[in-house]
Amino acid sequence: MKQKPAIPQGTRDFSPENMVKRNYIFQTIRDVFHLFGFQQIETPAMENLSTLMGKYGEEGDKLLFKILNSGDFFSKVSDEELMTKNPAQTAAKICEKGLRYDLTVPFARFVVQHYNEITFPFRRYQIQPVWRADKPQKGRYREFYQCDVDIVGSDSLLNEVELVQIMDEVFRRFGIGICIKLNNRKILTGISEMIGHADKTVDITVAIDKFEKIGLEKVNDELRTKGITEEAIARLQPIICLQGTNREKTTILKELLKQSEIGQKGIAEIDYILDRLEQIPLTSTLELDLTLARGLSYYTGAIFEVKASDVEIGSITGGGRYDNLTGVFGMDGLSGVGISFGADRIFDVLNQLDLYPADTQQTTRLMFVNFGEKEAHYLLPRINRLRQAGISTELYPDAAKMKKQMSYADAKKIPYVALAGANEIAEQVIQLKDMTTGEQRKVTWDELSLTNNLL
Amino acid sequence: MKQKPAIPQGTRDFSPENMVKRNYIFQTIRDVFHLFGFQQIETPAMENLSTLMGKYGEEGDKLLFKILNSGDFFSKVSDEELMTKNPAQTAAKICEKGLRYDLTVPFARFVVQHYNEITFPFRRYQIQPVWRADKPQKGRYREFYQCDVDIVGSDSLLNEVELVQIMDEVFRRFGIGICIKLNNRKILTGISEMIGHADKTVDITVAIDKFEKIGLEKVNDELRTKGITEEAIARLQPIICLQGTNREKTTILKELLKQSEIGQKGIAEIDYILDRLEQIPLTSTLELDLTLARGLSYYTGAIFEVKASDVEIGSITGGGRYDNLTGVFGMDGLSGVGISFGADRIFDVLNQLDLYPADTQQTTRLMFVNFGEKEAHYLLPRINRLRQAGISTELYPDAAKMKKQMSYADAKKIPYVALAGANEIAEQVIQLKDMTTGEQRKVTWDELSLTNNLL
Repeated sequence: MKQKPAIPQGTRDFSPENMVKRNYIFQTIRDVFHLFGFQQIETPAMENLSTLMGKYGEEGDKLLFKILNSGDFFSKVSDEELMTKNPAQTAAKICEKGLRYDLTVPFARFVVQHYNEITFPFRRYQIQPVWRADKPQKGRYREFYQCDVDIVGSDSLLNEVELVQIMDEVFRRFGIGICIKLNNRKILTGISEMIGHADKTVDITVAIDKFEKIGLEKVNDELRTKGITEEAIARLQPIICLQGTNREKTTILKELLKQSEIGQKGIAEIDYILDRLEQIPLTSTLELDLTLARGLSYYTGAIFEVKASDVEIGSITGGGRYDNLTGVFGMDGLSGVGISFGADRIFDVLNQLDLYPADTQQTTRLMFVNFGEKEAHYLLPRINRLRQAGISTELYPDAAKMKKQMSYADAKKIPYVALAGANEIAEQVIQLKDMTTGEQRKVTWDELSLTNNLL
Repeated sequence: MKQKPAIPQGTRDFSPENMVKRNYIFQTIRDVFHLFGFQQIETPAMENLSTLMGKYGEEGDKLLFKILNSGDFFSKVSDEELMTKNPAQTAAKICEKGLRYDLTVPFARFVVQHYNEITFPFRRYQIQPVWRADKPQKGRYREFYQCDVDIVGSDSLLNEVELVQIMDEVFRRFGIGICIKLNNRKILTGISEMIGHADKTVDITVAIDKFEKIGLEKVNDELRTKGITEEAIARLQPIICLQGTNREKTTILKELLKQSEIGQKGIAEIDYILDRLEQIPLTSTLELDLTLARGLSYYTGAIFEVKASDVEIGSITGGGRYDNLTGVFGMDGLSGVGISFGADRIFDVLNQLDLYPADTQQTTRLMFVNFGEKEAHYLLPRINRLRQAGISTELYPDAAKMKKQMSYADAKKIPYVALAGANEIAEQVIQLKDMTTGEQRKVTWDELSLTNNLL
């Protein structure tokens, strides 16, 4: 035999067992999105590179998978240029398209392109794979799914409230205990102002974002390297270490940031969200975490992150408010807020905690053993009737050895196997075997049709 | 504003309206697959080019989308080679991966790669997009979905019988009247033998495949250009023009092909399938069509094609038996049979015949008008309870003008709008407006909770 074929590094095949689990995850998330009135869109896997380039920083540009132009891709490259062998420069000439890197930029492109057909506020969700030429490593793939849900075209903080409800409901359905961490970019800006470093919001944000990972001392060290004064660092300590209930925190913050208009605005937004959520019974813990910053991205207001309570794993969902989603495509003034569910990490958490519903793996409810042509001929119209009654049924296609047929049923986790040989056919009955208990009993076809009781 | 961003030629964005329709199509097909015990797999969008190249003919190789290697893709190309500017040769050096062109080759690769983990007979389905660098034109896209269902590792003709049942059931659920055309490659071989041109099966097959499109005279002309003798063409006429019931056709064929062993085998297979299906009530017409050939692909036994009865459109589903799926990957002896549903064409047919279920476009059942902060605050926990009861509900996020809120509900096809202003809140009631009839009536919260009666 030739060498076994393989798939590209960092990509995956999904077996039936894993597909069932993944479909359970996507369907649960989708059900909640529908309950909240969100509508699905899909965008093409390939986008023009002009849409993608420059949106993810210099590093991101390098991680884009680029698609070679069809036909004579050399036609736009001069000989001189070719001989310089500059990959980035030549790539720009021989590739016009790339694979999408996330769902946010294609969504922004979609909103601008279809602006006149969209009813705003636009409540959309999108569940599709994205591709990144990252170094493959454990838990990091070059192809993975994102599940994004956003509302654009509304400034209302009720949208933030709903997104918290959605996170709560999704993980309640999964049975995963979570803490929803909440913060606001305006508070982070206010803090920078308060300690006299309004110009260094990004450096300060990046540093305190690492608090949970590296601890207070190292955060302070990083702040020093960024040129933050000792006095400012000292003033920052009570904020980073702020303890208490969410309300206690906002009360103290209001006092600490009383000079910062933007800081006060951020606190008021948090209070609004907490007020509204107090009336709604949540399963999750909701925690105002002032060290939460969500990287350097485009967020401008509320930011969210979900941590699983019982599993050591990074954030499994995150997002926030952005005030200028479509600005990069020349359309200003559209505000939005959204979150993204991390399907791969949720998959891992559900596996670790063994939280998949017991019957997830069942596809076929009932398999008929094949005893030969005559018996199969007899069974076909009867199996057709069972299927019409909604029972997922198989007839083993070959008159193979009983052992082989039974191990097929076993491997497929089929809960019931039916045997109808010459005797049973004469008697108009079936031997029905419960594959879990091993019990076997004689039933009539009528009994079998009252299926949901029996199977 | 900058120039509007666009998507690559031949690709599509799917709006919420179209997504709902597409999901209805995929879900209907998927439900039937599950009823017959098929399991889903997914494979990566990117495959190694070594897996894809040479599997679709020379033309197919050109239509593969190739992905530029990351980093310094020049490293494997010499200066001399670069200066020859030979696209195909250089592409092979600067690209290792390509986008999948169909689902069959990745499936074959999957079976070989995971042979030891698979339970055979393997009943798998796969619904994923494929990419082809075809010239975009009406109805032909560079990204489109395929829905494939196959059984591999079983020679039994019961699998063919089941696939016919699946086609019948899928289109019965869609409400699309169809004719399932049936033929067998062995009969086509037998016919070539019978007319004395066993060496020209491919030419004869290709020519008579065009019978429906170009008519008898032109088929005969094509046969002449391929060097088929007049005598042979004369002997072919009664076969191409064979009329009658399926059984009349096989009876005549048995006589005509009595010298051909393989021809007899093909007829016996057809008879077997017809025998079994006679016992099962089908909605579709089943027609033995001796001019059906399904191109030049790898089929070796039964072949199928579905035509819509009431719409002028090409085949909307097709497939057949192949005896050597995995041979290209060095694993011989695995026989399979499968069909592929054409989602894009089914979408067009359902649109033309207006067969989508009436409530397909509904996502949100009930929208509450937003009268302001106080009212929203009052509504939030009540809306939460409605959602817990499974009613997809929205609160318009901003206290916008009534007209704007109503047209939002209208555009989203939300069937019921609820109004609860200061008076209703005092009275503990809601004004419920039926958006279809325009009727409005006062209901209590309790009445609203008995939702399925009311909404």
